[in-house]
Amino acid sequence: MGPAPLPATIAWSGGLDGHLEILDQTRLPHECVVVRCDDVDTVIDAIVRLRVRGAPAIGVAAGYGLVLGVRALNPLPNAFVDATRTIAARLMAARPTAVNLQWALDRGIAAARSEPSVERLLHEARTIHEQDAAASRAMARHGHALVRDGATVLTHCNTGRLATAGDGTALAVLFAAWQSGARFRVLATETRPLLQGARLTALELHAAGIPVELVVDGAVAGLVARGGVDVAFVGADRVAANGDFANKVGTYGIALACAAHRVPFHVVAPTSTFDPRIPDGARIPIEERDANEVLAVAGNRVAASGVGARNPAFDVTPARLVSSFVTERGCVEAPYDVAIKALFATGR
Amino acid sequence: MGPAPLPATIAWSGGLDGHLEILDQTRLPHECVVVRCDDVDTVIDAIVRLRVRGAPAIGVAAGYGLVLGVRALNPLPNAFVDATRTIAARLMAARPTAVNLQWALDRGIAAARSEPSVERLLHEARTIHEQDAAASRAMARHGHALVRDGATVLTHCNTGRLATAGDGTALAVLFAAWQSGARFRVLATETRPLLQGARLTALELHAAGIPVELVVDGAVAGLVARGGVDVAFVGADRVAANGDFANKVGTYGIALACAAHRVPFHVVAPTSTFDPRIPDGARIPIEERDANEVLAVAGNRVAASGVGARNPAFDVTPARLVSSFVTERGCVEAPYDVAIKALFATGR
Repeated sequence: MGPAPLPATIAWSGGLDGHLEILDQTRLPHECVVVRCDDVDTVIDAIVRLRVRGAPAIGVAAGYGLVLGVRALNPLPNAFVDATRTIAARLMAARPTAVNLQWALDRGIAAARSEPSVERLLHEARTIHEQDAAASRAMARHGHALVRDGATVLTHCNTGRLATAGDGTALAVLFAAWQSGARFRVLATETRPLLQGARLTALELHAAGIPVELVVDGAVAGLVARGGVDVAFVGADRVAANGDFANKVGTYGIALACAAHRVPFHVVAPTSTFDPRIPDGARIPIEERDANEVLAVAGNRVAASGVGARNPAFDVTPARLVSSFVTERGCVEAPYDVAIKALFATGR
Repeated sequence: MGPAPLPATIAWSGGLDGHLEILDQTRLPHECVVVRCDDVDTVIDAIVRLRVRGAPAIGVAAGYGLVLGVRALNPLPNAFVDATRTIAARLMAARPTAVNLQWALDRGIAAARSEPSVERLLHEARTIHEQDAAASRAMARHGHALVRDGATVLTHCNTGRLATAGDGTALAVLFAAWQSGARFRVLATETRPLLQGARLTALELHAAGIPVELVVDGAVAGLVARGGVDVAFVGADRVAANGDFANKVGTYGIALACAAHRVPFHVVAPTSTFDPRIPDGARIPIEERDANEVLAVAGNRVAASGVGARNPAFDVTPARLVSSFVTERGCVEAPYDVAIKALFATGR
């Protein structure tokens, strides 16, 4: 990729008869391809194949997917809510771990209940989209002071413009810190199996002029032990009521290493990623993806033949390893059960 | 690879005018290529490029490399030890972390001192080779009862026939347990950046009929937390006097996860991998390899352009995380400073 800016991660084009455009992240960094979605199946396929990924971005895509699916059914007003539920159930099955998907679909269903029209659904999707961008800005504002001048910052997977409708979650904090004048460098994990760190995070940080070096996932603990990391920032796919959270596989190991060496470990996530109905991390469903993602790299089989793989896409980090959660409503510190209850008691 | 057995990892062919044959592990599992080494430069290149790797195997290769290098110099008897030292210094520079290289070269120099002849050097190299195979058998015998029937065993990198002149270190323990009738399954880390787990360990275990599944390195902590691992076995590249040890990058993170969830974590290494002259792990030199090993996979660049990488090939695990060391002289438990001193006080 040259310095040309990327197209929007997700964009609705046109009005009520418009379509959704999704930047195909599986082709980055080498190719820049925008997928046009005229129907909900294309949206579901894009979510399943990780053409669009990142918990907040999945939520935004699902909101628009609902519009496309219900619009095609063209239901009578008295069948509108049922139709919305039907399409929502199909979208919901695409990926189980990130709660933003459920959250956006619940908002769409509530909107359909209040006014059974595609126009209302599109309005809701656009509101989700705008609120997500606003949440990025707010998280960046609340979190950027956690990045000290001269620091080496560790991050995992991709939590940037490609993961949200705004500047990101954890990466938005780094972008804001850089813009406010802090000078630091980033160690980004490559994030096997799908290399979102190597392909996406490195691309975004490099484009922003922030010094970034990649490391293999296995190198984190040793680098932390040798004093090579001052602070870690990650995103989340679902935060339980007690502060346990699911995120890209590899996050828990990073948290253990940071805790062992007293390196602050911050989680940046909008309240749409919190799931106060789930008491703890043990209840979060962990998606197990195709073994071929592990057995092959960039389409080439690397593993010995006849061998299989386990491929959990996420892991769960216990709340006690988290230094703080940065949300769009401010930073949240332990005890997390109390703090998260307060976050939802006062509306969002 | 079909079920055809692999050529020997390292073999000396012929007598005093013979040559060394090294199975090129960088081409596995897809191609089976044997590199013929008629001179020390080819041996050094093979070590640098990881055509031969694994601490014990590197030691064995270095012993033969000394023969080839000194033979080519054809020194007079009174210049023989100096010539041996010169060649040893060149071999020593190939890789800094595994102490077996130093250990084998020290043995070669001592042999040259006792009798300045290529014949004596070849005899020493063959002795190192045979002793390494015998050490594998002894470690397997001492360690195999640590593998319980029904267990899920985690291992990292490659510690098998391809890493030694015998059946291996950690994998030799698994082979022996399987042969003694225990039935278990193995989770093998793929071991980025060079995928020795996916390419080599999976190949060896599958060929032996032992059920094996690959996981990305980042998946270990989450799987351990979910009760998916009963015991871990790894090898070592250098063990310090206090029991801290260097091993393939990623080992320390695995040890942290095992300790956090009380999963036994065993290190299998011959005494040739112990370095009692080094007091602790902080003094072990950590090799930093080419960034392109991280930025590309199987020759294809995966990372965004313009981005660099850190690539430490090893990390250091503190002794307190080790459940036991399995050596050819028996199992060693904490306190390790005392136990390791005893291991060397009584000769080896």
